[in-house]
Amino acid sequence: MSTKISEIKTRLFTVPLPEVMADAKHGDHYHFELVTVTVTLEDGSEGTGYTYTGGKGGFAIKAMIEHDFTEALLGKDGEDIAGIYDFLEWHIHYVGRGGIASFAISAVDIALWDIRCKKAEKPLWKMAGGHANSCKAYCGGIDLMFPIEKLLANMKNYLERGFNAVKIKIGREKLEEDLERIKAVREYIGPEITFMVDANYSMTVDEAIKAIEGFKKYDITWFEEPTIPDNYKGYGEIVDATGFPLAMGENLHTIHEFEYAMEQAKLSYIQPDASNCGGITGWLAAANLANEHNIPACSHGMQELHVSLVSAQPNAGWLEVHSFPIDQYTKRPLVVENYRAVAPDYPGVGVIFDWDKLGPYEQKT
Amino acid sequence: MSTKISEIKTRLFTVPLPEVMADAKHGDHYHFELVTVTVTLEDGSEGTGYTYTGGKGGFAIKAMIEHDFTEALLGKDGEDIAGIYDFLEWHIHYVGRGGIASFAISAVDIALWDIRCKKAEKPLWKMAGGHANSCKAYCGGIDLMFPIEKLLANMKNYLERGFNAVKIKIGREKLEEDLERIKAVREYIGPEITFMVDANYSMTVDEAIKAIEGFKKYDITWFEEPTIPDNYKGYGEIVDATGFPLAMGENLHTIHEFEYAMEQAKLSYIQPDASNCGGITGWLAAANLANEHNIPACSHGMQELHVSLVSAQPNAGWLEVHSFPIDQYTKRPLVVENYRAVAPDYPGVGVIFDWDKLGPYEQKT
Ligand SMILES: [Mg+2]
Ligand SMILES: [Mg+2]
Repeated sequence: MSTKISEIKTRLFTVPLPEVMADAKHGDHYHFELVTVTVTLEDGSEGTGYTYTGGKGGFAIKAMIEHDFTEALLGKDGEDIAGIYDFLEWHIHYVGRGGIASFAISAVDIALWDIRCKKAEKPLWKMAGGHANSCKAYCGGIDLMFPIEKLLANMKNYLERGFNAVKIKIGREKLEEDLERIKAVREYIGPEITFMVDANYSMTVDEAIKAIEGFKKYDITWFEEPTIPDNYKGYGEIVDATGFPLAMGENLHTIHEFEYAMEQAKLSYIQPDASNCGGITGWLAAANLANEHNIPACSHGMQELHVSLVSAQPNAGWLEVHSFPIDQYTKRPLVVENYRAVAPDYPGVGVIFDWDKLGPYEQKT
Repeated sequence: MSTKISEIKTRLFTVPLPEVMADAKHGDHYHFELVTVTVTLEDGSEGTGYTYTGGKGGFAIKAMIEHDFTEALLGKDGEDIAGIYDFLEWHIHYVGRGGIASFAISAVDIALWDIRCKKAEKPLWKMAGGHANSCKAYCGGIDLMFPIEKLLANMKNYLERGFNAVKIKIGREKLEEDLERIKAVREYIGPEITFMVDANYSMTVDEAIKAIEGFKKYDITWFEEPTIPDNYKGYGEIVDATGFPLAMGENLHTIHEFEYAMEQAKLSYIQPDASNCGGITGWLAAANLANEHNIPACSHGMQELHVSLVSAQPNAGWLEVHSFPIDQYTKRPLVVENYRAVAPDYPGVGVIFDWDKLGPYEQKT
C-alpha cells in the first residue's frame, strides 16, 4: 500500500484559560489557540500533530496550512519526513524563515512523526533518541501580576503535584518588586527546591545585569530571556558581566537562530519548542546542536509532547510544565513520578487529543 | 474630529502573471498575491496600504490582519504611526519577529502613512525624506529558465521602456550556463548599460566565490543574494575573498536582521522591501541604518511605492522595477524619464489601486 499523503485535516480551537494570565511582554492571556493537523496516508495510517499560540496567530497558521501546504503535500511520501520538511521550508521561504510558517510546519511535522512512530510500533522517546523515558521537570506559571499570596499558593500547588522545581515570571515595573517576589518564593519553597526566573525579554542588558546582582543570592538555577531574543550578543554581555547561567529558546524558530544563539549568547540552557521551531525534526536539530556545544536541551510549553523529546536526549535538561494546559485536553495528562516527568510508552508521539473535550472551542471559519 | 481608527477593511487578490516565471529557489510563479488594507478614521480620512507575495502566504496575512489586528486597532489614534507600529510588533511578537507578521504589519503601516501624507497634503517623497523626487532604476525579471533568445528579448524590452540598467537571475544547474547567459546579455546591451545578477541564494559561499571569478570581467554592478540570507557571515566571507559588491535585503524582515547584515555581511547595497520589513516605517529605519553605514538604500519589488521612498533618501540607490506588475493595477503605473523613475506628486503614498481591474481576482473566503 502506498504511503502517499491522501488527506490533511486542519482544525483550530480557542481554549479558555482557567484564569487571566500576564507576563512582562505579551500582556494578558485569556485563552490559548490550538491548531491540530491530522494527516492520512493512502495505506490508511493516520497521525496528528499540533501547534499552539498564546491567543494570536492561530487563524493565520490554519490559513497557511490549508491554502499553502495541503494541496502541495497531497501525493507526497508521508514517510519522507526530512524531504517534506525541506520542501516546506523552501515552499514558503519568501513568507517564512520564522513566524507563522514555523508554527505551521511544526504541526505538519509532528503529524508525520506520529505516523512514523505508530508504523514502527514505538513510543516517541525511543524514536527520538531513546536515552531515557523520564526527565527532570519544573512548573512555571504566567504569574507576573499575581499578588504574592497567590504566587505562593501557586508554589504550594506545584509542590503538591509532585514537582521539586519551580519558575516565576519577573519584569515588574520596579526591580525591588521582582526581588521581593523572588525572596518570598525562595523562603516559601526552602533551599532544596530548584528555582528559575523568566523576564520574557523585558529588560535591557544593563537592567538584567543589575537584576542578577539583586537575585543571585537566592540560588536561582537560570535567568530566562532577560532581554530580547534577537540580541544574542547582549546575552553574551550579561554572562561576561555576571557569570550567571542564562536560558532562552522559545522564541528561536529556525536552525540559524539556534546557531546564532550557540555562537554568541553564551547560554547555559537551551529551550526549543517543537510547536514553533519546526516540529520534532526542528526540535531534534536544535537539541543535537546544543549537545555539540555541551548545553542541556530543555523545552518550552506543551509538556505532553516534550516529555518524550527531552527524556530521549543524552543532554536532557529540564522539561517546562507550562501553564497552558494542553495536556488536560489529551487522553494522558502529564505523568510525574519521583519528581520526574514520565514519557508515554505507546506507539506514536504520545499525544492523543480528547476531541469531545476540545469540540466546544473549535473555530470554524 | 477624532483621528481614532474606526474601520479596517482587508482584501486579498490573486493576480495572474502574464507568463510563468521561475527563479533558482522559489520555483514557478503563476500569480502574485496582493493584500490591501484600507483604514478609515473617525474624521472620515482614509488610507490604503498593501503587501504582496509570490503566490503563497496571502491567506495567512489576511487572516492575521482580520483576526489578530483589526479589533485591537479600532479606537487607536491613526496618526500615531510609530505607536501603532510598536504596539503591533509586541501584540503578535510570539508568532512574529518576521514571516507573515512582517507582511501584515507592513500593509497596515502603509495605510497609515497614506492617511498621514493626505492630511499633510504632501506626496510621500516629501514626507519620507524629501531629498529628491526621482531615482535610478533598473529592470529585473524572474527569467532564470528563459532560453537565451527570450532573455535577450526581455533586455530589448527593458531598454525600449526607457531603462539603462538591467538585472537577470542566475543559479542554473551549471555555472557555465550562468556565465553563457551573462556573456550574452552583456554583449547584447553593450558596455554602457548597468548590469546586475541575482542568484536568489542558490549558491554556497564557495560556489558564489567561483561564480564571481567567472563573471567579474563582465562589469557586473552587484551580485544579489549569492547565498542564504541567514548566513550574514558567509556574505562577509565572499567579500573578503573577492572584493566583489554584494546586495541583499528582500528577505530581511526585522530591524535586527538589517543590523546583523550591516555588521557582518559587508554589503555594498541594501534592498529592503516595504511590503515585508514593516511598511514605510520599517523601510525608513532600514534606509537610515544603511545611511549610517554609508550604504545606498535600494529596494525590492513594488516600484510604484518604492520610487517615492528611494528618491527621498540622501543615500538613494537603485529602484528595482520588478516583474510582478502591481503598478499595472494602479491609476499611475511607474513613470520613467531620462532613465530615472519619477515619484508621484500628489498627496498620499502615491499608489491608488484600480479596484475595477483588481476585482475579478479577489479571493473571498
Ligand atoms: Mg519563558
Ligand atoms: Mg532578488
